[in-house]
Formats: sequence, structure tokens, C-alpha cells
Amino acid sequence: MSVDTDLALGAQLDVTELAQQLRVDAVRAAAAAGSGHPTSSMSAAELMAVLIAHHLRYDFADPGNPNNDHLIFSKGHASPLQYAVLRAVGAIDDDELLSFRRFGSRLEGHPTPLLPWIDVATGSLGQGLPIGAGVALAGKRFDRLPYRVWVLCGDSEMAEGSMWEAFEQAAFQQLDNLCAIVDVNRLGQRGPTMHGWDLDSYVRRIEANGWHAVAVDGHDIDAVDRAYAAACATTGRPTAIVARTRKGQGVATVADQDGFHGQPLADPDAAIRQLGGVRNLRVPVTPPPGTDRPHVFAAPGGTPPTYAVGTDVATRKAYGDALSTLGDIDPRVIALDGEVANSTYAELFAERHPERFVEAYIAEQQLIADAVGLQVRGWKPFASTFAAFLTRAHDFVRMAAVSRATLSLCGSHAGVSIGEDGPSQMGLEDLAMMRATYGSTVLCPCDANQTAQLVGALADVPGISYLRTTRAATPVIYPPDELFSVGGSAVVRESDHDRITVVAAGITVHEALRAADELAGDGIAIRVVDAYSIKPIDGAGLHEAAAATGGRIITVEDHWPEGGLGDAVLAAFTGDPDPPTVVKLAVTEMPTSGTPAELLAAAGIDATAIATTVRRLVNP
Amino acid sequence: MSVDTDLALGAQLDVTELAQQLRVDAVRAAAAAGSGHPTSSMSAAELMAVLIAHHLRYDFADPGNPNNDHLIFSKGHASPLQYAVLRAVGAIDDDELLSFRRFGSRLEGHPTPLLPWIDVATGSLGQGLPIGAGVALAGKRFDRLPYRVWVLCGDSEMAEGSMWEAFEQAAFQQLDNLCAIVDVNRLGQRGPTMHGWDLDSYVRRIEANGWHAVAVDGHDIDAVDRAYAAACATTGRPTAIVARTRKGQGVATVADQDGFHGQPLADPDAAIRQLGGVRNLRVPVTPPPGTDRPHVFAAPGGTPPTYAVGTDVATRKAYGDALSTLGDIDPRVIALDGEVANSTYAELFAERHPERFVEAYIAEQQLIADAVGLQVRGWKPFASTFAAFLTRAHDFVRMAAVSRATLSLCGSHAGVSIGEDGPSQMGLEDLAMMRATYGSTVLCPCDANQTAQLVGALADVPGISYLRTTRAATPVIYPPDELFSVGGSAVVRESDHDRITVVAAGITVHEALRAADELAGDGIAIRVVDAYSIKPIDGAGLHEAAAATGGRIITVEDHWPEGGLGDAVLAAFTGDPDPPTVVKLAVTEMPTSGTPAELLAAAGIDATAIATTVRRLVNP
Repeated sequence: MSVDTDLALGAQLDVTELAQQLRVDAVRAAAAAGSGHPTSSMSAAELMAVLIAHHLRYDFADPGNPNNDHLIFSKGHASPLQYAVLRAVGAIDDDELLSFRRFGSRLEGHPTPLLPWIDVATGSLGQGLPIGAGVALAGKRFDRLPYRVWVLCGDSEMAEGSMWEAFEQAAFQQLDNLCAIVDVNRLGQRGPTMHGWDLDSYVRRIEANGWHAVAVDGHDIDAVDRAYAAACATTGRPTAIVARTRKGQGVATVADQDGFHGQPLADPDAAIRQLGGVRNLRVPVTPPPGTDRPHVFAAPGGTPPTYAVGTDVATRKAYGDALSTLGDIDPRVIALDGEVANSTYAELFAERHPERFVEAYIAEQQLIADAVGLQVRGWKPFASTFAAFLTRAHDFVRMAAVSRATLSLCGSHAGVSIGEDGPSQMGLEDLAMMRATYGSTVLCPCDANQTAQLVGALADVPGISYLRTTRAATPVIYPPDELFSVGGSAVVRESDHDRITVVAAGITVHEALRAADELAGDGIAIRVVDAYSIKPIDGAGLHEAAAATGGRIITVEDHWPEGGLGDAVLAAFTGDPDPPTVVKLAVTEMPTSGTPAELLAAAGIDATAIATTVRRLVNP
Repeated sequence: MSVDTDLALGAQLDVTELAQQLRVDAVRAAAAAGSGHPTSSMSAAELMAVLIAHHLRYDFADPGNPNNDHLIFSKGHASPLQYAVLRAVGAIDDDELLSFRRFGSRLEGHPTPLLPWIDVATGSLGQGLPIGAGVALAGKRFDRLPYRVWVLCGDSEMAEGSMWEAFEQAAFQQLDNLCAIVDVNRLGQRGPTMHGWDLDSYVRRIEANGWHAVAVDGHDIDAVDRAYAAACATTGRPTAIVARTRKGQGVATVADQDGFHGQPLADPDAAIRQLGGVRNLRVPVTPPPGTDRPHVFAAPGGTPPTYAVGTDVATRKAYGDALSTLGDIDPRVIALDGEVANSTYAELFAERHPERFVEAYIAEQQLIADAVGLQVRGWKPFASTFAAFLTRAHDFVRMAAVSRATLSLCGSHAGVSIGEDGPSQMGLEDLAMMRATYGSTVLCPCDANQTAQLVGALADVPGISYLRTTRAATPVIYPPDELFSVGGSAVVRESDHDRITVVAAGITVHEALRAADELAGDGIAIRVVDAYSIKPIDGAGLHEAAAATGGRIITVEDHWPEGGLGDAVLAAFTGDPDPPTVVKLAVTEMPTSGTPAELLAAAGIDATAIATTVRRLVNP
């Protein structure tokens, strides 16, 4: 590979040449890596060349500039193109381009925010546009800055329902600062897409959702240029540019041919020659014109809610109260809802801070995407729905972790204790899902004062945090001044002759306390530990309790046996030379409808079941 | 509440009266339960009355009749209406209707297959239509029977992307046996939907997807009747009936008013009077006209593939080989793909059995919904995609368990060992997700012969089973005649002086064997257990190994530390009076791109890391 073209910086930019440079660099990067997706990159070369040459407003020397546009590759496998763009704008040099996919390089196989110009990780298709809609929402409603959000989408990923959640909601939110660029190269990973080059099949559906849509030849620079101009001129609704392109465009051996997805070109040197050789064009991207600062909401301050010991308050209610107060204290807090705010009590925040409340309707993937998009711009999103329905957005949570996102989730209506609504509404795998999320914090409070305090703490916890709340009102057992922290636990019943430790969290703390009362009548003292912080779990506290109670622990959780509190407690003793005997009580059969008491009993996680298990273990 | 109307069976059916009966019964059921969703039921009373009176073809005495139509309530919270329908058709009696939501009743808060006339559990919105599309696909392509699939949808759930995956794919598959009935009552749980009564906003988007769509007044019996007739007369594409309705229709205190979602009426007796009182109409639903049997595909028989010990074969390749052969052996096996069949090797099945291959494109929710729909009709679906992307369908897997579905999933490209593609493509939470699925079986083979044998076993495993495969070719270590079974494990290295047990699965078995070789050079013997069955895990085998190796276990997995192999091993020792010391090796930091070897080393799960950990534990 030789450098045979070197146009001087500042000369009139030839966008056709720039597009060829992007192709060549995509081919070179994949060739150097020995893997990657050059053909998926080559189809969109003109689309990106025109964008960076004429429409993008971005200061690459200052990626944190709040007025910068945002460019998201929803088709993250076109990372060679994204990195070629970064080289063309001077953000990375040629050596770094050729480090693509190497261990230690910032240029990963699919884009991640290891590169400061990349907002979010992509590569799980169908996520970039929903998240882009979230960033655009930040721009319109929260930052109130005129930046634009450009999202390069693939045609294969248009089959993902999450894309259509984004199309619907971006129109509903009138996000005219959002532009989807759909690269219709008609070929997916293993063959043709459903719609091939039927551009109208895309335009029709996108327009039906209320967008402005423009069909273009994606290799016609002037047409693409006009389409971007039309996007910028459109008000009140987002624009989609639906571009007919050829995968592998520019290299005859692969262009518009099936069977070349996700692999470097067989003869990169020949391909580069065919593309006109290596170039070193440098694009002087126009920086954002404004220097405005993001909008700051009023936050008069406030004190977290407190509750009188002995009253009955649902932890979901305390979540709503505390979040509402947190909005008073922290102007960057935003609450998001999946159309169940009257159940999760996020409604209390909505009533108090309507300007900072986002209704994502029953579209949990867009709910999380909005949260991810908002935190890209430094907002502090708290997204809530039923714990069970967060599973709908599992892949978005997974990718948020790859994006190193900081956001808080709250899942209400956890476990069989919700009662009559039945198993479809019961979150019984939420702890497992959230524990197995990279860098997550998982909390499960049992009491309103504890909940309120932990909600406040979450505003400053980096990464993805999760708070599980319950439907039923439960007794307030902690005074308002008792302190709780991420990683802590609380001993709620103890004596110097405890025979066993019961570790509980959430609703089961109250069952454990009732069991302790029942057992005390029989002269059996037990220690009850409230493991409200499930990840990180209080290993020291658990060790202390186990040592003090004969090395015997019972865990009890309103959750499947796998991946929840019991597994977390067991994991706290890994490496221990003399680990305790642990017995797990959890939900082992599919629950039905019934009263909370009936269902807790049927699942074997109520006070009676705990007391029975204690008796069996201490009097074997 | 009194019975003041009692029309004789067989008299000319008054559909208006029938609709009122359905309303009354929905009100009565919710009143008896003290909870439930009567107003969401009342909006669709005419829609269901007309359907069962004139269009449904179903033998309620024989719910297993293969020629029966299928009626799915995608808006599962309208269960009072569904149960009112079941009473009206004589499937359940009045006493059972009034057992709604009680512990022990088959009439759960949201529908489940505890009732034999209900195909699948609903209640997580946006799932009934995708699954209905799967059932319709079974009818057209596999059963080849003329039954129809009717799906009652809510307007709120139209915000779920999964609905639009179904709209797109049902049109693509030309499912003219599918009819979506959209009950546009304009009110969601906490307020108005995005589109209110803008029926055209629905019609436009549905038509844009290639469906036939009819807008009607959902309370106009003749109009609804004509719409159903039009659906039955439409060929080549599915039909949607978009019905303008009023939530709570028929009772002035709640009709078309916000704030009455999900609660019984305040004065049910007054409501029943206003609705004209209790009726006992009995609908003589027309049974299906045909007595045809489902199509049977040719299955000439075959023998599972075998591989020579010492050759290198990826477990994903063995999955494809074995599945292909399984198709030769079992005529009911169907393979489904999320547009990555050339990576998962499901392509091998597609090549051999094109008639029994379903391409669900990049729409993992529809992929699982198709599988659930196919198994409703007794087919044996095997759905595969990258392990990471199964998280996209987590809620569908969760609900499949509530549906007591039997289906097999395969997730390929698990763990950091995929290498250069980076973390977005790495399944690192799949074991946690699948273990925390009710009634699941979770397998993680390390070798091609083992994989092939386990794939064969899965065809007869009830419930939801999951097989994890890896990208890289790994050595075949087991002879073809070694036997593996669900719940088993294999000791792959042992001696009578083993100092410690290393429990591995999948790719890490090979690392453990390399560690054993390395340690043997130092005179340290270790036992290596291949825990290929992660759920159920071989508790007896693990106890035996622990006892034989000084009560010391190291687990090593290409997965996050939470919820995977390590937690499964720990859980195998719950209740043990003297549990072993367990040290978990797992992926604790966010991986990057790199070679498989670099990434296994960086994660601390390669042979070197295992050997180092062994040395630390045996020579503390």
C-alpha cells in the first residue's frame, strides 16, 4: 500500500476524493486487522464524506463541547468507516487507524467510548437510532442547544423493533434535530434483506411514523448534499435519508455481491489501487457556531422524605417521594417512565418536575435508550418500570455497560408478593439480570427510610445502578437517621446467642423478622441481616454474622433461586477456607395468582417457611 | 347481582346482548376478585362478541383439535373479557368465572395455559401479536391447515417495537390467516396514548408494512362483522382491524375516562344494572370445518455426526451439523435464525431442510415469538443467534416460561474468546439469564462430539433449553462413543493424588487441561471436571470431586462472575455441612478487542491464570 495522493490541508475539498479515501482507509484498517467489515463501510462512504465536509458541526479538538453535533454509527460494524472518518478529520493518525482491532487499541471491532468522539458503544444492531433519539431529546428539551444528531443506520437493523420505537417517539417528540441516514445496501450478513432496494418500503413506513423522509442515490454526492440540507431545513419533525447504496461499492470483486460480509478484502492492495490509492485529505470540519451553555433547571434544594417507624409504606412509594425530592436537590436529575408511573410512583416526580419528566410509553427499549442518550449529555436519568419489564430492555442495559453509561433503573412490583396480577407481572429474574451487568450496583431496600436514603445515594453512583421496589406497603422499621450505604448491610435482629443468620432483602426482611419473633417464642434466637446492597454485597458483615451464628446462613428472597440474593451471599464466601453452610429459600415453582400472603407461603419464603427451615437446621 | 335474562341455547343469538353479557361478566369477575381490568375489557366486548358468534371456528370441547382457530389476547390484562368469552362459549361455568385471580384458580390475573383454551401466557404487552404471527406461520408453512389466528391487541402496546417486528414479518411471510384486532380505546394505564383516536396513525403504519387494514367503530356490530368478513376474504397478506372504542364502554361513571385502569368498578351492582343485568347466553361456536391432519415432513433418519479426537472443530459447527441430522431424524424439528445462520451454523440445517428453516432476520424478539408460536402447534423449534443478542429477547424467553413452552435456544459467540469483534458481540451474561429462567436447562459443551450428542438430547427436553457454543475451533477431546446427558458432568483429568478440582465448561475446559499439563510438570496433580450441564448441575459429581481433592474447587468461566458456572457450582453445595472452598475465575473487567488468547489471558481465565490460582491455593 502506498501513499500516492496527498492533497494539502485547506485546498478546496474534493468530496468524491474524500469518499474514496474513506473507502481506502476502511479497506486498509480491515486488512491490517485481518477482520472487520470493509464492505459495509464502503456503501456509506459518500454519505459520511458529504456529512463531514459540509454539514457536521463539531470541534474534534474539544469532544466535550456541549454545542458539538453527535454522530452515531447505529450500524456499528461499519467501524472501519467511522475510524476512517476520525482520521480524515485529524482526530487520529494513520498509525492508530492501522491498530484497528488490536489488543490495547482504542479502535475496537465495534465502536466504544474508549474514543472520546464516540458517545456510545454500538454493534448490537438497532440501538444507535433509539439512543440518538435520546441525545436529540436532550438537545431539544434539556440542554436546549441547537446541536444536531446524525445516526448512520443499516438496512438490516431496520428489522429490529427498537428502531420503530425510535421512529415513533422521535416524531412524537418532534425531534427535528435528529437525522437518520439509512444505508440501504440491500445485503445483510447472510443474504438479501427483506426489502432489498425497495426504498419506498422504508420511506413509506418512516413517513407513516410522522418523519420527513428523502430517498436518494447514496453514491450521488450532490443528491446526498441536498438531502442533508433538507434535513437541516425541516422543522417540527425528524428527517430520514433513505439511501440506495451498493455494499462494497468501488471494488468490483465485492461490490453488490453476497458472501463478503464481515471479512477483509482478499486482495487489499488491488482494491486500494482500484479505489485510486491512499489519500491524506484532511477535512476542516466546521466547529459548532454557538457557545451557549446547556440549560440549567431550577433546583431549590430540599430534604429527603422521612417516615415514622411503624407506619406502612411501600418502597415504591418511597422511591417516588425520594426521587421527587432529589429533583429539588439536583438540577440534572431526569425521571423516565414506561407508562406505569402511577404504579412505580415516578408520577410524584412528574407532578413536581414536569419539565424533567420523560414519558417513553410502553416501549422499554426506548426508555433505556432515552436514559443512555440523556447521560451522554451529562444528565442523570432515573428510569423506572415494573422489574419484570426491564427484561424487555436487557440488551440495551448490556450495551449501556459497554458504553460506560451512568444511569439509575428502578424496577417495581418485584416478586410473588405483588399478588393477584400473576406471574407475567412478577419480576423474579431482575436481580440476576442486573447483577450480571458489568459494573452494576444492585439495591433491594425493605423500608421507606432506607429506600429514600439509597435513592439519594444513587445520584452519585457511577455505572448502572438498579433499585428493586415492592408493591405492597411494608412496615417502616428503621428510624430516619439510620444510615445506609452502597455496599452496606444492616443487622436488624441480634443477640449474643443467635443460632443462625437469616439473610433477607426487601419483602423477605419482614418475613424474617416475623420468623424471628415466632422462633423467639420457642427459645431459638436468630440473627437477621438485611442485605439491602446485593451488589456490592457486604462481605465483611456476612462473615461476621456467619462466624457469630455457628457458620449457618439461610438466605431468603422473592426471586428465582438463580443469580439473586442467595447466589450473591454464596459468592461473598468464595475463597473462604471454612465457608458457612448456606441454605437458600427462593421461588422454585411458577407462581400463580393469589394474595401476597398466599403466594409467599406457597413459594416457601414466608415467615413460616423460614422458621421451619431454622428449626430443621438448628435441631437436625 | 341477579340473573335477569336467560336466553335459551340455540335461539337466534343477539350479538348486542352477547356483548353486554361479556361486559357484565368482566365487571362481575373483577368485582369478585377485588382487582383486575374491567374497563380494558369493556372496550372490546363487541369485537369479541362478533368474533365468537360469527367468525371463530373452534371446538371448545376439543382444544387440541389441530384445525381449531387460535384466539390470543395480546392485551392480556383484558383477561376478564377472555374469561367472559370462555363462559359464553360454555368452556367454564359461572362459579369458575367468579374464581378470577383467586389462589388455586385457573383464571389467573393475566391469561396462562393453565386453561387449555389458552395457547400462551400474555400480560407482558407486545407479545401476543408476535407469537400469533408464529402460530400463523405454523399454519401456513408447517401444519398447512386452514385455521386462522385472531389476536386482540391494545393500542398502548402498539408502542412496543416487537409489534412492528410482527407487522413487518407477518406481511413478508404473507400470513393471510392472521388478523390483528386493535382495540383503540385511547387510554393507557396512566393517561392518553400517543395517538389517541387517530385511527389513521395506526392504519397508515400497518398498511405501510404491507397489511390490509380496516378502520371501524368497534362498538358497531355490523361494521365489525364486515371487517372480520373482509379479513377472511383477504389473501396474500394479513389484516388488521383498527377499532375505535371507548374504555369502560357501557357504564357512564367510567366510560372514556382516565383514572380507571386496572381496578374493579366502584359500584359493580349499579354498573351491571346499567348494562342490563346478568345474562346466560350460550354461544354455539362453529367448530372447524375440516378434519385434516397437520402436514408431516419427510425424515429419512440419520446418525448424529461424529468427529475424530484431536481434530479442531468449533462447537458452533457441531451444533449446525447435529441440528441438520436431527432434522433427518425428527420431522418436527424446525430451525430459526436471527440473520446470522452463517455464524451459528444453523445454515447447515437451512441447506439440508430449507422447508423447515425460518429466517427471522435481525429481530430477536420475533425470532423467539416464532419459536413460541411453532411449539404451540407441537413443532420443535431450535432458535439460534449470538448469545449476546438473546438478551434482546429476554422478556420473550421469560414469558415463554410462563407459557410452559418447550423450545431450544442456541447462543453462539459466547465470551471473550470470540476475540477481535469486541464486547458488543460477546455473550457474557447468557448463562445468568438462562439459569434464571424458570424450568430451564442450560448446557455449555466444550467439544464437538459432546455438542452433537447434547443437541440430540435437547429434542426431548421439556421446557426452555439453552446451548452455549463458542466461535473458535477447539480440540475434540471425547471419543464419539462417550456418553453425555442433561445433568451430567465429565471428569477429564484425574489421579489419586489430585490436590484441587478445577470446574470448567466450554472453552475453559481446554484452558484447564493446559493448566493441568503445566502443573503436572511441577508435580501438582489437579482434577478437571467438565460441567457441561450447568443447569441442572451434577451436584453428586461435584461433591465427589470436592471430597477427593481436599475440599478445594476453582471454577473458571468465560462469563461475568455473576449467575454463571461459578454461582451454579456454589449453589450445588447449599445445605452442605462442610462446603468446599470455592474460588471463582471469571471475566471481571470490560473486555476489549484482541486475539482470543490475549483476551482469555487479560480476563484471567486462561491456563496461566488457572495454574497460578492452583499454586496459590495448594501452597498457601
